[in-house]
Amino acid sequence: MPWHRPHLLDIESLSAAEILTVLDTARAFKAVGERAIKKVPALRGRTVVNLFIEPSTRTRTSFELSEQRLSADIINFTAEASSLKKGESLKDTARNLEALNIDFIIIRHSAAGAAHFLSRVLNAHVINAGDGAHEHPTQALLDAFTIRERKGNIAGLKVTILGDILFSRVARSNIWALTKLGAQVTLCGPATLVPRTFEAMGCRVTYNVDEAIRDADIIHLLRIQHERQRKTVFPSIGEYTQLFGLNQARLAKTKPDALIMHPGPVNRGVEIDSDIADSKRSLILEQVTNGIAVRMAVLFLVNGGKGPQEVAAG
Amino acid sequence: MPWHRPHLLDIESLSAAEILTVLDTARAFKAVGERAIKKVPALRGRTVVNLFIEPSTRTRTSFELSEQRLSADIINFTAEASSLKKGESLKDTARNLEALNIDFIIIRHSAAGAAHFLSRVLNAHVINAGDGAHEHPTQALLDAFTIRERKGNIAGLKVTILGDILFSRVARSNIWALTKLGAQVTLCGPATLVPRTFEAMGCRVTYNVDEAIRDADIIHLLRIQHERQRKTVFPSIGEYTQLFGLNQARLAKTKPDALIMHPGPVNRGVEIDSDIADSKRSLILEQVTNGIAVRMAVLFLVNGGKGPQEVAAG
Amino acid sequence: MPWHRPHLLDIESLSAAEILTVLDTARAFKAVGERAIKKVPALRGRTVVNLFIEPSTRTRTSFELSEQRLSADIINFTAEASSLKKGESLKDTARNLEALNIDFIIIRHSAAGAAHFLSRVLNAHVINAGDGAHEHPTQALLDAFTIRERKGNIAGLKVTILGDILFSRVARSNIWALTKLGAQVTLCGPATLVPRTFEAMGCRVTYNVDEAIRDADIIHLLRIQHERQRKTVFPSIGEYTQLFGLNQARLAKTKPDALIMHPGPVNRGVEIDSDIADSKRSLILEQVTNGIAVRMAVLFLVNGGKGPQEVAAG
Repeated sequence: MPWHRPHLLDIESLSAAEILTVLDTARAFKAVGERAIKKVPALRGRTVVNLFIEPSTRTRTSFELSEQRLSADIINFTAEASSLKKGESLKDTARNLEALNIDFIIIRHSAAGAAHFLSRVLNAHVINAGDGAHEHPTQALLDAFTIRERKGNIAGLKVTILGDILFSRVARSNIWALTKLGAQVTLCGPATLVPRTFEAMGCRVTYNVDEAIRDADIIHLLRIQHERQRKTVFPSIGEYTQLFGLNQARLAKTKPDALIMHPGPVNRGVEIDSDIADSKRSLILEQVTNGIAVRMAVLFLVNGGKGPQEVAAG
Repeated sequence: MPWHRPHLLDIESLSAAEILTVLDTARAFKAVGERAIKKVPALRGRTVVNLFIEPSTRTRTSFELSEQRLSADIINFTAEASSLKKGESLKDTARNLEALNIDFIIIRHSAAGAAHFLSRVLNAHVINAGDGAHEHPTQALLDAFTIRERKGNIAGLKVTILGDILFSRVARSNIWALTKLGAQVTLCGPATLVPRTFEAMGCRVTYNVDEAIRDADIIHLLRIQHERQRKTVFPSIGEYTQLFGLNQARLAKTKPDALIMHPGPVNRGVEIDSDIADSKRSLILEQVTNGIAVRMAVLFLVNGGKGPQEVAAG
Repeated sequence: MPWHRPHLLDIESLSAAEILTVLDTARAFKAVGERAIKKVPALRGRTVVNLFIEPSTRTRTSFELSEQRLSADIINFTAEASSLKKGESLKDTARNLEALNIDFIIIRHSAAGAAHFLSRVLNAHVINAGDGAHEHPTQALLDAFTIRERKGNIAGLKVTILGDILFSRVARSNIWALTKLGAQVTLCGPATLVPRTFEAMGCRVTYNVDEAIRDADIIHLLRIQHERQRKTVFPSIGEYTQLFGLNQARLAKTKPDALIMHPGPVNRGVEIDSDIADSKRSLILEQVTNGIAVRMAVLFLVNGGKGPQEVAAG
């Protein structure tokens, strides 16, 4: 299915066919990343602003590498360096960037809806790099890409997402992507962080971790993130590790071909034992690698690319 | 008139003919910015250091985009990252940069005269991006470019600059540029911030805001900047807004084709009402857009370009 | 002798022949830096991460310029921006960078051994840009390059290193390089900072500064660095200047062709008088200039370049 969207704001509004177009296009770009010269001229002479109002290292670096490999010009714009400190609004910042004739804004912001807002007030292409606890669509796309690459297909797989679901944009975007692609999604974690309202998104909710991971093909662990959590709903770190952390005893009860994912950075010894994170069953570094191809694909598609058949010509 | 200066340090020392050469060259570069591929190879293989010892987002970003579009290599050097924290002097920093064989230094510094100083001790091309309360020449050039583009000519126009004139490098550079190009400049603001000594620069000074803007073709508002003001000479923000802020009641008494300018970032509701800032009479975003073409022109000219007729060949 | 190492971790493990290969290759790159277009395509499409976990301006800038002139793609990764703030380990940061398919990591870190550690866990080329008080190999190589350029040969020269030897990675790397190349190295400074154990590295140790510099061909001053010193072993700044600072009276007792070096940034009036730092006998700015050619050579060689004869073809 040819792509036609000028922005990537969320997964919720994408069809399964659109998601698959991104994944197919990313596969073509992954081949580019394995060449000695990893660059294509697709975005030459076009300017991308990485507008990260919330701190981020790996997502920003992954986007920046993707942009470099597409030969774009890049402006990095972090909260610390920004006029936002002088009290300028996001709208004014964005309109000023647009007045600079920039072509793409990659935005990370603590407010849910920030990317949608920008897409309404700007002509530039907007890509959501994480907005509050709402969505993180490129993360879900790279996760889906990684699962498909390893398991061949997503439809029919059992995926368990474990951790703080309530405050996680990674969880929300993954739930949308996986259910659209036909996976059966189970959510598990402390009851205060995994409300039953998620069942309305087509997921199963359970508070029994052993039962949650027993039949899973994919166990997706979320990072414990204190910054977006109210302390009153979260147990202590030690209690979380004891009740929900993935250790060897729990792993022994899973299917032998169950694979482990984590968006990083990993809290070793908290949500996952260090040796499991480094084991052959862990896809953590593959997720990182695939992020570049997926983000190249998204930039390429919102810029007017139709799909994977155009990449080779790039 | 062909350009021959290796630096752009101020407006004061430029002739009207030189200013017009910059504006004409900028017009040629503005056409480049509207092409799909916005790059020209004029500065390929040459290195520009953006040496911003005072925080800035929009001026630095505008310079960086200008440099990218000229295909320069770019080093960003901010106060936070700099050896200046270790107590190194500006002279040592600059001489070390020159020893690195860099070709251009764009300097913003809190000390008036910093750019002139560097131009005396370095062989690199120096461009003043704002030195204390002294000058901000590229801002005045982009303002003049914007006025000329909209009004056809600057000679004979009535321009009113409103706000904190005393501590404003934007005001000083604009006064030099506009009076050299034949505009009649009126200054208005709190008496403590608009001393009559500015009359020696060829301006009219008044403390009556309605009278100051009544016949103006251009109303140039300055940003209220606490950082360079002594508190004792400035009224409260609320009092400033009431006495000098541009609101609909005041705007109604101006000429219908009077246009509003502001160097940004705007304090909405302080020096200007939000709806006026966003109205068709506001040139604020055009100023931002034109900044890139003007800065490309300045880089091109100090590098040895003679004028607009050479840009097409670039 | 053709180069074959994939990393540059220290000087200690290099042979004299390998050091000379770097210096010869750097000489070829220095010629590139004097052309109008200072770029060669040697690293086009390859990605370099500058991973500076300790603040640095000049070393990072020098590396970044070197990388630009080799046409590499560059990611700057500073401690402030990094996940390391979230508690991620150096190993995880590095493995994540590698998962991004980056080709080179330039690392500065406060821990001795950080570069060696990375080279063991990564496939990427690792270049040590300073690890704790251990080594700073590119500094020693640029120093040796500068000495050889001015003195013709290093073998047989008398080089005195003056200052805080104990905590200085610059001193350690210089001692290794200079002794391997046949210079006679004398160390001098406060007794607490110049232990006699350095004699095991083939150096002479003396606490009499006049005697130390009397016969020297090169006087290499180290920067007084409070950050890596225990206060209890260091005299006051004033006492240091009086006892060990290079002033005109001391300089008058040296050989007329003795040359002065300093890795910068200079504390004028502390370890060296300001007029000596700016005199014809000072090589300080030449060291800065040569740093780019030396770092280009190192990047070129660890990437598989064999030696200087390949640079012209680059």
